[in-house]
Amino acid sequence: MRTRNHPAAADLTLPQVLHALSDPVRLGLVRKLADGGEQPCNALDLAVAKSTASHHFRVLREAGIILQRPEGTQFMNSLRREDLEARFPGLLEAVLRAV
Amino acid sequence: MRTRNHPAAADLTLPQVLHALSDPVRLGLVRKLADGGEQPCNALDLAVAKSTASHHFRVLREAGIILQRPEGTQFMNSLRREDLEARFPGLLEAVLRAV
Repeated sequence: MRTRNHPAAADLTLPQVLHALSDPVRLGLVRKLADGGEQPCNALDLAVAKSTASHHFRVLREAGIILQRPEGTQFMNSLRREDLEARFPGLLEAVLRAV
Repeated sequence: MRTRNHPAAADLTLPQVLHALSDPVRLGLVRKLADGGEQPCNALDLAVAKSTASHHFRVLREAGIILQRPEGTQFMNSLRREDLEARFPGLLEAVLRAV
């Protein structure tokens, strides 16, 4: 399984990060990753179709909110907390307090 | 000029607030209102067509981010800082630090 592209921390933009977070399913996913640490996609029960779930993971990855690391036949997902904190101090914590 | 509808503070939702903030023009508008306090629409030079500006003001108003108060032939715009802080502590401040 090939490695997926991720934006560099310096390339994260506030509009794209806010847009990626502006969806209830994606906010729920971010909440689960904040609570449970790195997890495979299938452990994050999103209650949506697989193609829809893939879309949400991609939006979060392309915005720089999650890291997707290949492991065996699946991807392990984690929040890019340090990168987000460095670029937008306090933003992710404020979102997590509210969700 | 009639008063426009605004959502009650208790009805603000995080996805809608984040979506309203996920646009560079609207972020610029929020920045100007944070810096300059209450201002009429025409003092906030958005460098976009009037209909586009109206759209952006409406998105911010409907999300509960700005208050539009009629005064004479125009609207005065201000940030709903206290309402936002009460509902989503630290969120607006984190956004303003980054924009």
